[in-house]
Parts: sequence; structure tokens; C-alpha cells
Amino acid sequence: MQHSHTPQDRPARPGQMSWSGWGDPSRATPLPGPAAALLETAFGPSAGHAPVPLDSVRLPSRRLAGPARAALVNVVGQAHVSEAPEARIRHTRGKSTTDLLRMRAGDADDAPDAVIEPADHEEVLGVLRACEEHGIAVVPFGGGTSVVGGLAPRREGWRGVVALDLRRLDRLVALDAISRVATLGAGLTGPAAEALLRDRGFTLGHFPQSFEYATIGGFAATRSSGQASAGYGRFDGMVQGLRVATPRGSLTLGTAPASAAGPDLRQLVLGSEGAFGVITEVTVRVRPVPDTCIYETWRVASFAEGIDVVRDLAQGGALPTVLRLSDEAETALSLASPDSLGTPARGGCSIVVGYEGAADQVAKARDAASARLASRGALPEGEEGGRAWERGRFQAPYLRDRLLDAGVFVETLETAAFWSRISEVYAGVRRALVAHLGVDRADPGDSQDGEDDGDRWGGGDRGGRAPVLVLCHVSHVYETGASLYFTVAAKPGDHPLERWREAKAAATEAMLEHGATITHHHAVGRDHRDWLAEEVGDLGVEVLRAVKATLDPRGILNPGVLVP
Amino acid sequence: MQHSHTPQDRPARPGQMSWSGWGDPSRATPLPGPAAALLETAFGPSAGHAPVPLDSVRLPSRRLAGPARAALVNVVGQAHVSEAPEARIRHTRGKSTTDLLRMRAGDADDAPDAVIEPADHEEVLGVLRACEEHGIAVVPFGGGTSVVGGLAPRREGWRGVVALDLRRLDRLVALDAISRVATLGAGLTGPAAEALLRDRGFTLGHFPQSFEYATIGGFAATRSSGQASAGYGRFDGMVQGLRVATPRGSLTLGTAPASAAGPDLRQLVLGSEGAFGVITEVTVRVRPVPDTCIYETWRVASFAEGIDVVRDLAQGGALPTVLRLSDEAETALSLASPDSLGTPARGGCSIVVGYEGAADQVAKARDAASARLASRGALPEGEEGGRAWERGRFQAPYLRDRLLDAGVFVETLETAAFWSRISEVYAGVRRALVAHLGVDRADPGDSQDGEDDGDRWGGGDRGGRAPVLVLCHVSHVYETGASLYFTVAAKPGDHPLERWREAKAAATEAMLEHGATITHHHAVGRDHRDWLAEEVGDLGVEVLRAVKATLDPRGILNPGVLVP
Repeated sequence: MQHSHTPQDRPARPGQMSWSGWGDPSRATPLPGPAAALLETAFGPSAGHAPVPLDSVRLPSRRLAGPARAALVNVVGQAHVSEAPEARIRHTRGKSTTDLLRMRAGDADDAPDAVIEPADHEEVLGVLRACEEHGIAVVPFGGGTSVVGGLAPRREGWRGVVALDLRRLDRLVALDAISRVATLGAGLTGPAAEALLRDRGFTLGHFPQSFEYATIGGFAATRSSGQASAGYGRFDGMVQGLRVATPRGSLTLGTAPASAAGPDLRQLVLGSEGAFGVITEVTVRVRPVPDTCIYETWRVASFAEGIDVVRDLAQGGALPTVLRLSDEAETALSLASPDSLGTPARGGCSIVVGYEGAADQVAKARDAASARLASRGALPEGEEGGRAWERGRFQAPYLRDRLLDAGVFVETLETAAFWSRISEVYAGVRRALVAHLGVDRADPGDSQDGEDDGDRWGGGDRGGRAPVLVLCHVSHVYETGASLYFTVAAKPGDHPLERWREAKAAATEAMLEHGATITHHHAVGRDHRDWLAEEVGDLGVEVLRAVKATLDPRGILNPGVLVP
Repeated sequence: MQHSHTPQDRPARPGQMSWSGWGDPSRATPLPGPAAALLETAFGPSAGHAPVPLDSVRLPSRRLAGPARAALVNVVGQAHVSEAPEARIRHTRGKSTTDLLRMRAGDADDAPDAVIEPADHEEVLGVLRACEEHGIAVVPFGGGTSVVGGLAPRREGWRGVVALDLRRLDRLVALDAISRVATLGAGLTGPAAEALLRDRGFTLGHFPQSFEYATIGGFAATRSSGQASAGYGRFDGMVQGLRVATPRGSLTLGTAPASAAGPDLRQLVLGSEGAFGVITEVTVRVRPVPDTCIYETWRVASFAEGIDVVRDLAQGGALPTVLRLSDEAETALSLASPDSLGTPARGGCSIVVGYEGAADQVAKARDAASARLASRGALPEGEEGGRAWERGRFQAPYLRDRLLDAGVFVETLETAAFWSRISEVYAGVRRALVAHLGVDRADPGDSQDGEDDGDRWGGGDRGGRAPVLVLCHVSHVYETGASLYFTVAAKPGDHPLERWREAKAAATEAMLEHGATITHHHAVGRDHRDWLAEEVGDLGVEVLRAVKATLDPRGILNPGVLVP
């Protein structure tokens, strides 16, 4: 039977984000029994550390001087300047695994001195002026979901650091139903923006894994890409206009769907990660709420074959709305749907294929894509796997917390390349991660020769080194190439942060060596900053510095983030 | 009978461009008899001026000093530095009507002092170094088809100006058939690039009216958009990577279809009009040569109704490859297909709808679009009009020369806006043009009340003012809006350049007043420069200046163009 429903079924807005992990603690679920057993087999007995209590977290001394505090209060009001420990802790760093490990250990050394909550664009301008005058660095803060160190500025050299929390910029500023264009406050979270739009018959169609907490401004500032990007496009492609507050005044950009009025300055703001200005409003293309959503899975014999299949869909003009291809290891572990973690694998690779839209358009798109999938040898598996994917689509970060509890280090990284290089990028990044994190638990070479996947997770340590799992999926496809999203699970020993730093560096070097980008949708932050010059060249970095010097001459905005 | 063919039928590469008009003089055709009669009725007796002979053109004295010449010869070789009058004349300005009128009158005051033809990227870098050292301004020169003053730099303050003709950068540098990505030399013209790609089974699908002469580098530098943009997209959307030579070294950008590695610096080079650097190679998405091409026309009752119809196609996911909607006046005059100029109009508005691709995909796309067109009340007219459009698709600029011969001033301008504002932009720009150029010969209000179009062109002068024709079509459509392309024919009297300048200024002000962009695909040049700050703000202009100062600190590149 066909499973179709409207997006009204999507989960309601979650509660406040955990300070030491991901998401709404009331939604956290324990690891499924088979998964726990499997992990114990793979990684040995659990030796995790629970987070310290909130009141045991070490915070640096508050540094805001009286005149600076008064200037900020003067702009936003007393109620919107907080120096309370909990507020500071909740605005410390982002949600990378290293961020979580440090926070779980009670280390909030990067905490801001205060949290400022401006009401609107004018107040943001006022905060920037006050901070410039008082030598205070400013971290624009949306959902706090950065996984690349985008919220941990350089503290040295400043008389304070404030987190500029944009949660009060939460209005649907304008909706042009004829043009299908909406102007949204930068502080709206994904669910809040969707709710406002859905009441008026529209959707943004942007559903990254961080959807429940990440904000419209953050999507723009980091060039986010969602799980339905095959149909709705990347966030940067949806953006029509931007309003930006900088220390040198406002930028208002975008008056038409396209223009030849010089370089596209919107594209300088997109991806600027709060280092050039504070995005306060984003004007985006919207679409009617789909009346039909179908998610199903298909199976192919191997990742290599799957890559050809999804490339054929992308280049053949038959893209569904959602298209994700898991490699052998990820298919076997079904990490994409945590509630089925540990169910027996059937071999080969799974493709999640989803369609959203008007019923007749969904039917046509499904026919076209299905014909191509079948002609390339993919086998339909029905909607069960699609439903599981849908239920779990925002759950992986919750699962990570449970794995950290169990002493397993889990992290993700991602890249993109042209199709002709995807396979070598995949192999190169995998190799780099395994070389630095331990014994490979899922060599993709194994799957080619028909070995039973069930065996792969068994057995103990090989050669005295700890085991590592590297899973991968193709998460976003284009006519000319695709992104690869890696999940790593390992027990890197006593110095997990250092080991991960080495492994991540090696993976990034592998991306560059094989012609891939250092990040497809996680952004640069501090974690990728040292490689940016290899991506855009020294002269490209000089251009970024010149732009920053023009908009933020004293460098108060997110110092140390993005620009090397 | 269905008319379908492969693009092999497209015209072969034309010969050298006329120095005083458009295109290959051997292809020029006289005005069709009915058209000439119609024009005489509309505008009165002809009083044109033929171009002066080439050897009567006034050139400024050559200014290149010996050491500068020697430095340039040292880089590119004696054979590739020309100070010959004809070479200088052929690199003077572009192809706007004011450019042509000045050239026809023998005025080449803006001529470069020399024409330099580098062989490759390294030689471009060498030329820039030499010019910087010797205080010489550089105009990057592709096809010479700018219609916005993009090739007429400020001459004051320099010890010379050279045109940097990129014609020798004419290689297919690389073709990645798996990824469908090609790297093309910037100096390749449209037909030359298509020929190289077609031999390998691919097409770029970029066919602007300037296609026969404009170059790959120029398409990128000006954010060109082609007649098949509904299917293939804008040129800036096709670009995957760029190689740029600047006075401060090289920029090499673009390693993947999409990236979150900071701001997209490619988008700073796209639209930079030679003011930031010289684009030497462009990496573009290509597509297989279509095996089927069908062009047909549909009829709607009015332009307003037609706008709703094309918006429905764009927002309904049923876009054909080509989609162009003419207003009542343009439909009546059939300027879009000059060979049918003067044929009786049937009232209403014509839509050209074209499909290109594999036969089965064309059939599906045509079914989907036809169903939507019919459901909105559009009437199919078959392929005759589509064939006429196809034959004439690159001919309008030739026709302009014949009209100039006949003493009629003809020029075009264009803009884009969100759908909700298209009608007011249309009315506002039209009103501004008419107010400054004479009596309206085709008030679109007339067509609403069933008046016979045939009458509209008759009659003499009204109120002592000269007549003016303003024609318009929707040339490019997006989900959120569209572009409007205006053609103006007038007899502006003794001072046509001044009258046109006033009319163009008023039209641009109308665009800004109604929320439209100052240019959708013609670029900024010198003609739109003074309005750029109204489009991107003073702070946006400061950003552009900072980028220019970083890449071109002495400002040798196209001074006075683009950046206010």
C-alpha cells in the first residue's frame, strides 16, 4: 500500500536543546538492545563518561566591564543582556563531537561573557556599534548547531566576547504568494519557519539533519543543504535576498530572481559565517505544501553501482525530491534509520528515494525515476525502509549522545566532488580515517566479493589497534557531481580529541588531493579554516580579508572563524 | 507535421564582425518590403545616414611609448601587438546603438592605443604586469558585443589603453564526459565552443542573441543569459569553475558542483566585467546534444494573461527549454522573427515554446507544458511561428543596422523582477520611454479593448511629437519572477544620443522605483554604473571597490566600468 501523507505529520517543535548533547532531552531514547550488543561486539565493553552536572561546568570569569554592559543594556534592555552561567554555557561552542566531549567533561573555557538578545535589525546594528566601541567580539548565534567550530571565536585581544542570540528575530516579515517569495527573520528555527509558512500554504523544503534547532540565518551563513535538496535545492539556491547588519551599516541585497548588475554580493554573505555581518532577514523562494509524500528504498549491488545509478537520475532529468545512497557499511548498519540499527543486512547498498508534491506530479516523477532505476538494475524494496528513514531522519544526533555515553566516539564529515572523482575521494577519505583511527571494521572491498556482512562486525581487535567503523552516503546530487557524507565510529583511546584532529586533518588532505571541496554543507568555522587557502588560493583569502576589513574594520565579528 | 532537427542545422560560424554595425556584412539583408512601407507609415520618410568609410574614421593619436610597447612585445611577440588603425577601430566600444551611431559618424575617440593578443593565461599575466608597470589601462576584449559601454574605459590618467583581445585562448582545455563538465578557453565564441563540444556529443545550450560573436569569457564576465535559459539556465548557473589572471596573480576557483567553503568567490568574478581580472578559462556544465528540437507558438489574449500563463509553467515544474512571451505590440510587429515583419497580426500575444532533448523526454515535457498552457486558455498555433523564430533568433541585430540606415533609432534594454511586480515594471518602464522619446505608437492599453492592431501603426504625428514604438517580451522565467526585454524604435530628432540617454535614465529610474534590477543579462558597463549604488547600496559599492583594490590595486583593469 502506498504510504503518503502531508508534512503536517512532521514532529512538533522540540524543547530546549541539551547543553551537553543534542536536542530535547525528553526525546532521547536509549540504544536499541541489538545495537548495544552489536557495539559491544565491535568495540568491546563500554567505558563511557556521563556529562558532569551543569553546575560543575568550569566557566571563565566574566569580563564585561561596566560601561560596556551599560552600552549593551542601553541598546537591547536589561532583560536581554544575560551573564548568568547557564546562559553562557548554553552559548558555548556548537555541536561537533569534540564540542560535546569537552562540554561533557565540564570544560566551557570558550564561553561568551554575556548573551545578548536584540529585538530587530536596528538593535543588531546598535549592538555592533557598542561592541566596536568597547572592544568586544561578537558571535552571531542562531541555533548553536555548528559542527565546525563556527561559534568558538578567538578570545585573546578582546575586552570580552558576547553571543548575539538572534532568537527574537522570529517573524515572517513578508510573504509574496504570487512570486512565492517569503522574507523570514534570521532567528526562526526550521520548525518555526515551516509552521509560519505552512499556515499560509507554503513550505521552504529545507530539512537538514539540524532542522529542529538550526535557524534561517544559520542556514544562509553556512550554505546549508537539506535532505530533500534533490528536489528543493540547496539553501543558498533558495535565497533571493538578504538583509545584513555590519559594523559599517546595512546591506540589503536581492531585488529579482536573477541579475547581471555586477558580482552577486548575496553570494559573499552566504557562507560568511557571521564574519562579515549579521544576517537579520532572509528572502527565500517557497513552494506550496506538497499534498503527497512518498519515501521508498531501492537496492543496488554495490556503492560503485549505486553511484552510477544516482548519477543517471541526476543527469537524466529524473531527480526525485530525496535521493540518498548508502555504502555497504552504512546499509549494513542502517545508521540512517537508528530504530532499525542491528537488523540483519541483506547485502548491497540501499538508496532512499522520496517524492513530494502534487499527487499527479509525484506519480509522474516516480514513474520516470523508477523506470531509470530499474533499467540500471536497482531493485525496488517498497516503502518500509522509506518510512524508517523518515522516522529517523532527525534522530542521528540523538543516537550520537547514546554512543558517547557508551564510550564510542562518533563524528561526521562531508565533502563534494565532480562525478568522475567521487570514487577516488570516497576511497581516499576512508583510507585516511582508518589509518588514523584504528583497524577498519568495514572495508568496502569486502562487500564486492560476496562476503556475509554479518561476519564483518564480529571478531576482536586486529593487530593490537582499536576498531573503527567508517560509513558513508551520497547525500546530495547534482548534474556534475555529488557530496559524500561520512560517519565514523571509533574508540580512539585516551586522547580522542587529538586522535580525531589528526584523522580529520588527514581526511581533509585527502579531499584536497583528490580534487574535492573541504566542505559541502557544514561550512568552514575554525575546524576547516587552515585549509581554506588550499581551496580558494592565497589570493582568494586576500579577497575575503579585504571584504571583512571593509565591513568589519576592527574585526569584532566572529574573530578567528572562516577567514585564515 | 512535427518539425524536429538536430542542432547541427545551426548556422556555421559567421565571418568577421562589421566595424560599424552588427555581424557578418555578407549576411546582411535589406528590410523586407512590407516592413519598409510600415516603417515609413509609422515614422515618416527615411532620412538615414550611411556609415562613413572606414578610412575616414577619426582615431585619437596613438600613445604607447617605446618602452611600454617593447614590454608588451616581449610578452606576446611582435605579431600580437597591433597599433594599426583598423585593429584599433575594430576594438572601439561595443555594439549598443549609441556605439554604432558614433562609429557610423566616424567617431572612434574611445579607441585603444593598441590591440594585444596573448596566447594563454601566462601571457595574460605578463601583459597585466607590463601594463601595471607602464601605467597602461587594459580592456579585456572577447567578442566586442557589449551593449552597455563595457568596452569604453576612462582614458584620462593613463599613459595608454590597450584592448586585450582573448581570441587566441580558443581551446577546449578539458572535457570530463562522466561529470559533464568542460573547461573552455575564454576567447572561444559561441559557435566555436559549440563546434568543439558537439564533436564530442555535448552542447552548452547557451544561445543569447549575441551568440555568433560573443565569447565564453564574456558570457561569464557579464552574467549572460540565453534564449534557451528556461531549459539550460543562465550562464552563471552553468559555471562550475573559473581561472582568472589579475595584476596580483591568479585565482583558480571551483572544485565541486557546490561547496560551503565560505563565500562563493566565483560569484565575485561572474559579472565582474573585466574590472577585477581577466577570465582565461571557464569550466561549465555541458549536456548531451539534443536529438530532438521542437519550437512552436501559442497565443494568449493579452500580455497580462500571458504573464500568468508563463508563471504557471515556471512554478508548476513544467518549463520547456525555450519560453518567450511577446506583448501585444511585439506580437503585432513580429520583431522576434524579422522575416515575417509586417505580416498581419492576429491580435493577442504570442508565446514561443521550445523543447530540446531526447525524443522521449521532449514528448513528455511537451505533453506536460501543453496541458498547462491549454488549461490556462492558451491556443496552440503549431510550429510555423516557432520555425520563423528559430530562423530569426540571431537576426535582430542585423535588422537594427537596416533600421539605422533608414533613420530609425532602435535600441533594447532589459530588467527583471519578482512576478508580483512584473506588470507595474512593464507599465513603468514603458511610460518612461514614451515620455522621453515621443508619442506612443503602441499603447498596450489599446489592445485590451479589441481595437484593430492594424490601425495602430497608421496615422501621423500626434501633438507635434515624433512617434515611438515600445515592444516588450518576457525573455527569461524563474519560479519567483521573470525578465522583461524592451525594444524601442523612435525618431528622436537631431540629438538622438542625448534623447536616448534621458530616456534610458528614466527607464532605469522606473525599474528601481518598481523594485526591479537595473539589468538582468546585459551587465553594468558604463551605462548602468551610476545606478549600481541604488541596486546594491553604498556599502555594497564599497565592497566592490575593496575587492578591486585587492586584485587590481593600481586600477588598470577597465577603469570606469562597473565600479562607480
